[in-house]
Amino acid sequence: MIYQCSAERMHDKIMTFSKFGDAGHGGITRYALSKEDESARDEFVRRMEKIGAVIETDDLANMYATLPGSDPQAKRIVMGSHCDSVKNGGNYDGILGVMGAMEVLETVAAEHIPHTHPLTAMIWTNEEGSEFPPCMMCSGIVCHDFMPERFRDNFKEDKMLKSVSIVDRKTEFGKKLSAFRYLGKKENRLSPDRYLAMFELHIEQGPILEDAGKDLGVVTCVLGQMIYRIKFYGFAAHAGTFPMKKRHDAFHAAAEALCYLHEEIDRLGVDDLVYTTGEVVIHPCVNTVIPDYFDFSIDVRHEDPAVLDKVRKILFRLPERKWQQCSCEVELGWNRDTVYWNPALVNYVRQAAEETGISHMDIHSGAGHDAQYASYMLPTTMIFVPSDGGLSHCEPEHTSVRQCTGGATVLLNAVLKLDREGL
Amino acid sequence: MIYQCSAERMHDKIMTFSKFGDAGHGGITRYALSKEDESARDEFVRRMEKIGAVIETDDLANMYATLPGSDPQAKRIVMGSHCDSVKNGGNYDGILGVMGAMEVLETVAAEHIPHTHPLTAMIWTNEEGSEFPPCMMCSGIVCHDFMPERFRDNFKEDKMLKSVSIVDRKTEFGKKLSAFRYLGKKENRLSPDRYLAMFELHIEQGPILEDAGKDLGVVTCVLGQMIYRIKFYGFAAHAGTFPMKKRHDAFHAAAEALCYLHEEIDRLGVDDLVYTTGEVVIHPCVNTVIPDYFDFSIDVRHEDPAVLDKVRKILFRLPERKWQQCSCEVELGWNRDTVYWNPALVNYVRQAAEETGISHMDIHSGAGHDAQYASYMLPTTMIFVPSDGGLSHCEPEHTSVRQCTGGATVLLNAVLKLDREGL
Repeated sequence: MIYQCSAERMHDKIMTFSKFGDAGHGGITRYALSKEDESARDEFVRRMEKIGAVIETDDLANMYATLPGSDPQAKRIVMGSHCDSVKNGGNYDGILGVMGAMEVLETVAAEHIPHTHPLTAMIWTNEEGSEFPPCMMCSGIVCHDFMPERFRDNFKEDKMLKSVSIVDRKTEFGKKLSAFRYLGKKENRLSPDRYLAMFELHIEQGPILEDAGKDLGVVTCVLGQMIYRIKFYGFAAHAGTFPMKKRHDAFHAAAEALCYLHEEIDRLGVDDLVYTTGEVVIHPCVNTVIPDYFDFSIDVRHEDPAVLDKVRKILFRLPERKWQQCSCEVELGWNRDTVYWNPALVNYVRQAAEETGISHMDIHSGAGHDAQYASYMLPTTMIFVPSDGGLSHCEPEHTSVRQCTGGATVLLNAVLKLDREGL
Repeated sequence: MIYQCSAERMHDKIMTFSKFGDAGHGGITRYALSKEDESARDEFVRRMEKIGAVIETDDLANMYATLPGSDPQAKRIVMGSHCDSVKNGGNYDGILGVMGAMEVLETVAAEHIPHTHPLTAMIWTNEEGSEFPPCMMCSGIVCHDFMPERFRDNFKEDKMLKSVSIVDRKTEFGKKLSAFRYLGKKENRLSPDRYLAMFELHIEQGPILEDAGKDLGVVTCVLGQMIYRIKFYGFAAHAGTFPMKKRHDAFHAAAEALCYLHEEIDRLGVDDLVYTTGEVVIHPCVNTVIPDYFDFSIDVRHEDPAVLDKVRKILFRLPERKWQQCSCEVELGWNRDTVYWNPALVNYVRQAAEETGISHMDIHSGAGHDAQYASYMLPTTMIFVPSDGGLSHCEPEHTSVRQCTGGATVLLNAVLKLDREGL
């Protein structure tokens, strides 16, 4: 039996949620724990209580709306994402996963679809980390004890945490959390004791589905990622008085090294490798002084660890030579191995897409998501819908109502398959 | 007759002035109109009144200490520089020119050296513009009406000025100036009616004299200079989701263009051309986002306008091609033609160096100085002494007492030549 979600209901949700944080030119700014966030959660509660769902919130203000299933002992199946945004973000990143989960529950309620497991629609707090880094903060805290050691270390370093799993209430985030109307109890947190599996519907945030003419992506993994800082140390001197030949210009060094990196990495010939040099520090950044310091970040992502290793080797060859008489250091910022979604869940999503007749393809996620931390604790998977023009984290971010509804429909049918057939 | 300045007195001045703004590790931070600036001026007044000089201050707190000459009708010969510094600057930039002028007056007074013209030691306010840009602010205001139109336009744009020659007292700088103990009258300003010529002793701020093993530079001109911004417009997208081939990476574009500029400009084969790319703006400067905007400044200096023209042509060729699928714009920031010092004064300095047996060479100034604005109003020249390691605008900035005293001695004898022989 195949079920369909409602485009009309979906459209109404998109219109409604896009008001909470409306920046006046098509997009939203809705920071975690802000008034706008609270309004979005009020709407979530209003809609979920209307269909008889029970609302819980945990000590990080993560929210859970649960429709009971026929077996009161069965574990819950959870669907969700986040409702906070970046500054001048769009109306789909994050909130679509919440709206999709709500739509699933609303469809189940409206059509009295029989199901054994309780079904939960969920909101994660502070995925973007816009005001309070790190991103995926609250899924990171909830799933902390299940993470590989390396990720736990990332979290320990963060000053915001009092311990590895409790937010320090004296920090700005802690104070905001304490005062937030949807603060609840720690025992309500997502846990493997009470939850069977997690699904996250999300926009792709890239152009791959659109370019392939597909309406849905069956996500198989989150790409392995490493972030390094490439640092150049030169020598500051006066722009007007210091001869060219004696200079140790850190910006020139970095520019040369950046071009070299592009050549060397592209020479590997790996088509689906992505790497980005997005963040820069320059000192002293004055037009009449030769820069004595320049660094840039490089973020490299690929599914295959052997490919990442090849890139790592290129990076670590940089300090072996002088760049414009400057020395070079390479420093690891962060890395994660490729995270594969639960194969049974991936299969349910693929089957649901087939059976509902929605054009689809397998895809990996280049971006990080709350689901990625959840996957250390629970069987997890994700569903992507296309992003027009590949745009996200900006106000023109857009996905058609048809595609959003298609995503919810596949989510619904995949969840029902899990409900019937188990893992 | 050749006169010698006193190394002992010079050393004492260097030690004393280095206390006003002492940052605790060898250098000073002495912003214009600060308490530290006031202390330095107190010391200037104390020393100059001790030898019978008359103190005047103008409406910009520029200060003048004058020893009378034998002809009360003769115009004054002025020597001076500034006593403010950059943040964590050194004990020589600016203040050496003030100490050198004081040393000249002290030597004249101590040795009863006969002279016709009154001799004035001067302090310019806010040359560095550390807290209140632009740099050379007060010499710019005083000399405003004598400037070529283009420079006047630079000044008009500045919000600080109420009109082209009066500081707006409602600005932060204006308020500080109003409250400053050494604020005086507009009629005391440096002017061609009362002053014959101006000399400025300064450290080189580069390594040329040191490398040539010379103790003194006979400065012939301030180099022509042009500052442009090179801007690249790309397209922001997600680091993890956006394929390499579709990217419009503004940082990559800028890095390639920077390397190209170095190649093309170096190919001109002009040895003493200097150019510097010191200031950078990148957007959004996030390690997971492909930069959609990058710009850098380029400051180019050379004596010959034809050389600057060749570089300008290279810059304006940049927008003709796409850089990593980004568009490029070139925007003029600022430019000045080479300013030549008064040939008679340059000659007096060269002769004085010869006659005092101080090793010297002709040199140009790559940096801007108050003397440059003064030269639009009065016959003007400059004298350089070496900077150890070419360092300046930093705490290790250093010139030996011997070289500082040598600079003052050449200044003294050049001034006396002018006093005797006229322009």
